[in-house]
Formats: sequence, structure tokens, C-alpha cells
Amino acid sequence: MWSDLIAVGRDPSTGGYRRLAWTRTDHDLREWFSAAADSRGLDVTVDRCGNQWAWWGDPDANPGVVTGSHLDSVPDGGAYDGPLGVIAAFAAVDVLRGNGFAPARPLGIVNFCDEEGARFGIACAGSRLLTGALAPDRALALRDKDGVTMAEALVTAGRTTSIGRDDEALARVGAFVELHVEQGRGLAERESPVAVASAIWPHGRFRAELPGEANHAGTTRLSDRVDPTLAYARLILAARESAQRHGAVATCGKVRIDPNGVNAIPSLVTAWIDSRGPVGDDVRAVVAELTALAESAGGTLTEESWTDATTFDTDLRKRLSHALGEPPVLDTGAGHDAGILAAHGIPTGMIFVRNPTGVSHSPAEFAERDDCLAGVTALTTVLADLAGSPA
Amino acid sequence: MWSDLIAVGRDPSTGGYRRLAWTRTDHDLREWFSAAADSRGLDVTVDRCGNQWAWWGDPDANPGVVTGSHLDSVPDGGAYDGPLGVIAAFAAVDVLRGNGFAPARPLGIVNFCDEEGARFGIACAGSRLLTGALAPDRALALRDKDGVTMAEALVTAGRTTSIGRDDEALARVGAFVELHVEQGRGLAERESPVAVASAIWPHGRFRAELPGEANHAGTTRLSDRVDPTLAYARLILAARESAQRHGAVATCGKVRIDPNGVNAIPSLVTAWIDSRGPVGDDVRAVVAELTALAESAGGTLTEESWTDATTFDTDLRKRLSHALGEPPVLDTGAGHDAGILAAHGIPTGMIFVRNPTGVSHSPAEFAERDDCLAGVTALTTVLADLAGSPA
Repeated sequence: MWSDLIAVGRDPSTGGYRRLAWTRTDHDLREWFSAAADSRGLDVTVDRCGNQWAWWGDPDANPGVVTGSHLDSVPDGGAYDGPLGVIAAFAAVDVLRGNGFAPARPLGIVNFCDEEGARFGIACAGSRLLTGALAPDRALALRDKDGVTMAEALVTAGRTTSIGRDDEALARVGAFVELHVEQGRGLAERESPVAVASAIWPHGRFRAELPGEANHAGTTRLSDRVDPTLAYARLILAARESAQRHGAVATCGKVRIDPNGVNAIPSLVTAWIDSRGPVGDDVRAVVAELTALAESAGGTLTEESWTDATTFDTDLRKRLSHALGEPPVLDTGAGHDAGILAAHGIPTGMIFVRNPTGVSHSPAEFAERDDCLAGVTALTTVLADLAGSPA
Repeated sequence: MWSDLIAVGRDPSTGGYRRLAWTRTDHDLREWFSAAADSRGLDVTVDRCGNQWAWWGDPDANPGVVTGSHLDSVPDGGAYDGPLGVIAAFAAVDVLRGNGFAPARPLGIVNFCDEEGARFGIACAGSRLLTGALAPDRALALRDKDGVTMAEALVTAGRTTSIGRDDEALARVGAFVELHVEQGRGLAERESPVAVASAIWPHGRFRAELPGEANHAGTTRLSDRVDPTLAYARLILAARESAQRHGAVATCGKVRIDPNGVNAIPSLVTAWIDSRGPVGDDVRAVVAELTALAESAGGTLTEESWTDATTFDTDLRKRLSHALGEPPVLDTGAGHDAGILAAHGIPTGMIFVRNPTGVSHSPAEFAERDDCLAGVTALTTVLADLAGSPA
């Protein structure tokens, strides 16, 4: 199952994945999902926002237990972030069937679209649209780096632009459990190959626009320059220093320089900042300092997205912990579709699989085979528990 | 004549020009040059490197007087940098013909290709290849931002890849005079609309490669990060500070961040630095400091090009100054094909046309119409002087 997926969207030069939403590669991933469901006799439905659901049992009979994750990636991402949760879901269904398990409620597997937000800039776009946390008009107008809107990308992918909150699809989800590779070193030096999630840190993405005056890099005196790269450099250093001081993290991983010519003083630097931390007020303090810095340079800092801290359903977390023999409990700086569903009020939990290096969003992302199999076993146990009784 | 050229390669959203070498836009500019020559009965030749020459008189009879410039631009460049020198050349020929002037030696107009180096990174590529200052193998292997080599671009443009030093074409150039819009404020507050050039500053382009460790921007502790944007930020600030201290200029106008994702710590930052100044040793001192900084961050700083100071031919400069009534004499931080030909030993001079703001390499680049016409008059005077006698 894994081998069919491993080559899709892989850049041979880096070994990393470029699985961006609503591309040809994404189409191939969705075809793979449909085929995996078909070969197991699961019924595939697609909600208004394009998220794919594979059902064992009638999803409209009573609220089901859903697992799954996403198949898209960041640019040059790893093989596990997302796909591990989808593959483990199918594998768990195979084990349950092999054991002659008969679900007392519908059991679903979901592939959320556009989780990374790598193309249009908003993470968890598929689940945010589904729950109404992201307004359709705003989403459709988002542009990728080539200027293509999400609306245009949807049409190119053969999808409708009539997207938005889908209460019918949401009503089918009685509980959601997402299995995901851990993205830090929370399990690296512990005995357990799996953990249960307690919370997701508050998380924001911000866009700095720092204007300059385009001019010739050879003939313009230093004193005559308005060079926005200087403010950009100060912003990068301030983001790190401020995050350190406030016990948060902040990253300037993306930039666009106009015109980006070696002999031209730029007219504009657009820089993106990602900031998170255990405490929302601390993250807000970092952002306030960076806003002041951008404004002192004649620029702006605009919030592109903000997600409050998510605490997973306490009862469900206790039930998962109990079923799994009380493994470690971790919080995480990474956002997930599970967090969006939890914020919407659906009982939601997560299982993390050990990451020996903590590396993620990189071709070097890795999990041991035995740990992945332990994740499948854990997910199987949890699904048997949750779907073994009617609610 | 200007109106036919004004729309070619113009980006309607910025008003700037995107006339990159060996593109469809470049093809249109070359067609314009051929048509301008044809309509005047000038014979067009193309040398081994693709530079276009339009001749009044037999260029193989005896060494000619050549004027002209280039038609390509930086990304979002202005309308005057390059085209003013080509258009003024055709206009000067029109005036000389209208006056019944009979040249005693061949008179040529040249359009040097790829002067800005905006696509493949090496400025004055056409004249450097022509004189042998740039090795053909190195040039052909250069890649643009999409990974296309110059060799591939030449084939796509219908050109040969058998490029290189062309002694036959060089032998036709007895003297070269390039008219160019001034790119600083050297004439902005002076009475004269034109100046004669004394020298071109030494000039280098350098590429910094700063490696990091790709990782997740949310889950990686600050202390576990190898984030290359921090070294990049320090490089930007050090370039400015060091240039200021050494009486030079330095600019970080271009960068590539891999993978350039908002939620990914980059694996690599590649930054380009352009540095120039009146004194070569001062520029070298700036570069040495930045090299040390890049190396202390585990990176490298590689020289992509270096051009020593160019002092224009003293006799020719005096002759131009005398013919033009002793206008101001300026040095310049901008590189030009004239500098490449001068370094090759061809008697070479330059005429600058006043730039009221000093802005260049920007859509805001500008010269007053009267000053452009004064430039044509000056060029006409100089050509009449130089081509009026056999040598």
C-alpha cells in the first residue's frame, strides 16, 4: 500500500515531496485514496470542500468513528506527515476485518485536502472550510505564488467552486481520531512508540510588507537608498530574539523580493512569519513586537491566520489513554485538522508515532517501521474500542 | 522610433520592463533593431555571440566607429537604460544623413545582447563572450531561475551554441562610443545635460550559500534549530555596514530560499551580493569580511564575476570632451559593455545623459526629453568628428 504512494510527487533531486493542493500530483493522491477504498469495498463520498471520506457501514445510519489525516505536503516535505495517518487507517481496517470485527457504528477514513496550506497560505483549508472556520469567499480569492486563485485551481482540478460549511458531512462524524508522526522529540528518548495528544499550541501566520525604493545597486549612494532588505534582516533577527524571550517559537521561512535582481535595490520585500507557543499571550507579545518593528520601517504586519490553543476532548483522551495502556501525553506546536474539528466541538483525539530525530517538514523526516506498525496496532485498538459500541 | 519600442516587454502592473536575454521579448527587440537598420539601408551582421551590428559603409574596408548599447533590462527595469543609447545612435545617423555627411570610415550601431545578466547572472555576457573575457563553456552552462541553461535558451531562440571570441567582429571596431542614461545624480544639479565618462568602478558579484537543517517551524525547539535565515540576516546588515566603512556600496538584492515555505525552517539560503566602489582594494575588503561571516556560519561566498576598474582611453576622452565643449567628467558605479571593450584594448568612451533623480533599474527611471535630444546632438557631433577622418 505504502509502495504505491511513495513515488507520487517526489522530487528526485532532494527526495522530498511536493504534494501541493489541487495540482496534478494531488489528483494522483486522491485517485490512490479512492482505489484503496474501492479495493476494500468502502464507499467513497466527497464533501462540499473536496475532502474524501471512505465508509465502512452506512454513514447516515448513526454518527460514526472517523480516522485519517491528509496526503498533501509542504514543499520538499517528508513521507510521513499526513500519509502515515491515512495508511494506518486503511491498515487498521484490514486488521479489524481480519479479526472478524463487526462495527456497531459506521467507521470512516478521511483524506483532508490542503492541510499544509503550502500553496494558498492557509493551513487546514479543507477542514476549516468544512466547519465554516474559513469563509469560502476568502478562500476562493487566495492566490498561489504564480497568481492562480484557489477558485481557478479548483476549476482546473475539475472541482466546483461552490465550497463551504457542510453540516451533512459533519453530522456523520461522532468522534475523530487522527494518527500522525510526531514532529518533535517528545518520544525520541522514551520507551513508548506512541503518545496521546493533550493540546495544540496557539498558532499564527503573519505577512510583513516592507517597501523600498527600486534603484541601481551600483550607482545609488548608500545615504540615498531605501533598501527594504535592511528592515527584513532586522525582522528575522528580532523574530528569533523575541520568541526566545517569550518562550515561543517564530520562523521567517518564506520571502518574496521584488524584483529579486542581483544589481537592483528591491522595491518591496514580502516576508512571512510563523509563530506559536504554549501560551497564546506570549505568541501575541512576539507578534506585537514584530508589528512595531515593521511599522517603524514604514511597513505593515498582517495576520493571515490565527488559531487559538486547542485542548482535545478530555473524555476521549482518557478513553484513548486507557485503551493504549497509559502512554505518554504530549502537546504539540504543529497544527492539525484534528484541532479544527476539536474547535468545532467534535470529540477529537490524536495518536502520535515516535520520531527518532524530531525532524519534520523535511526529506529527512522519518519513523521506524516497527514504530509505524505499533501505531497501526494502537489505532486498531482505539477504533475497536470506539466503534465496538453504538456511541 | 521610440514609440515602437516602448511597449515591448513592459509589465502593465508596474510599468517596468522585463526584457530578459533570449526570451520572446528579446526576440521582438532584436526584430525591432533589424527593422530600424533595414529602413535606413544599413547592413545588419550578427557576430558569433549574437550581438547585432548595423553598418553604414563596408565594415571590412577599414576599422569603423561604432556606437550603440543594449536593449535588454533588469526585471522591472526602466525605459532608458540601454535603449536610449541604441535609439540615439539611429537618430544620430538620421541627423548625419540629413546633413549630407559622408563618413570617411564605416559607422556601426551595435545592440549587445544580455548586458544586464538578469537571466543568467553574468552582466555584459554578450560583450564578454565577444572579447573572450567569458569562457563559452562556462556561459553555456549558466542556468536561469527555472533551471534553463544558456545553451538551451540559445537553441530555443533559434541561435547556435557555437559562441565565443569573434576576432573578425572585433577587428571592425576601431573605436566605440556608448551613450547611456546617467544612473546616479552626477548631473542632476549641474548645468550640462551630458557628461563624458572617465572610469567605471571595479565591480563584483558574489553568491553566498548558507546551509540549514530543514525542519518544522512549529515543533522544533529554538535551541535545536539550524536556521540559515539568521546568518542571511547578519550578512545583509554586515554588507551595508562594511560597505559604509570602506567607502564602497554593497547590495543583497536577490535571494533564493529552499523550500520557501511559511511553516518550514529552510534547508538552504542562497543570497547574491553586488559590491562596487571607486577603489578595488576597498571592495575586496568588504568581500573579505562577508566571506568570513558566511564561513563562520558554515557557508561559502563564491565570486560569480569580478571586473577591475576600467579607465577609458585618455586620448578618446579628451577628443570627446573637446568636441562637446568640455562637459563634466564623471566616473560611475555601473558596468557597461563599453567597459568590456575598453578592457579588451579598443579605444572606448562614453557619454552620459542627465538623470534628474538618479533613479535607475526601476520603472521610475527617467530623463527629460530635451536632455535626450541634447544627447543625440552630442553623439552626432562626436560621430561626425570620429568618422569624418579615416582613423
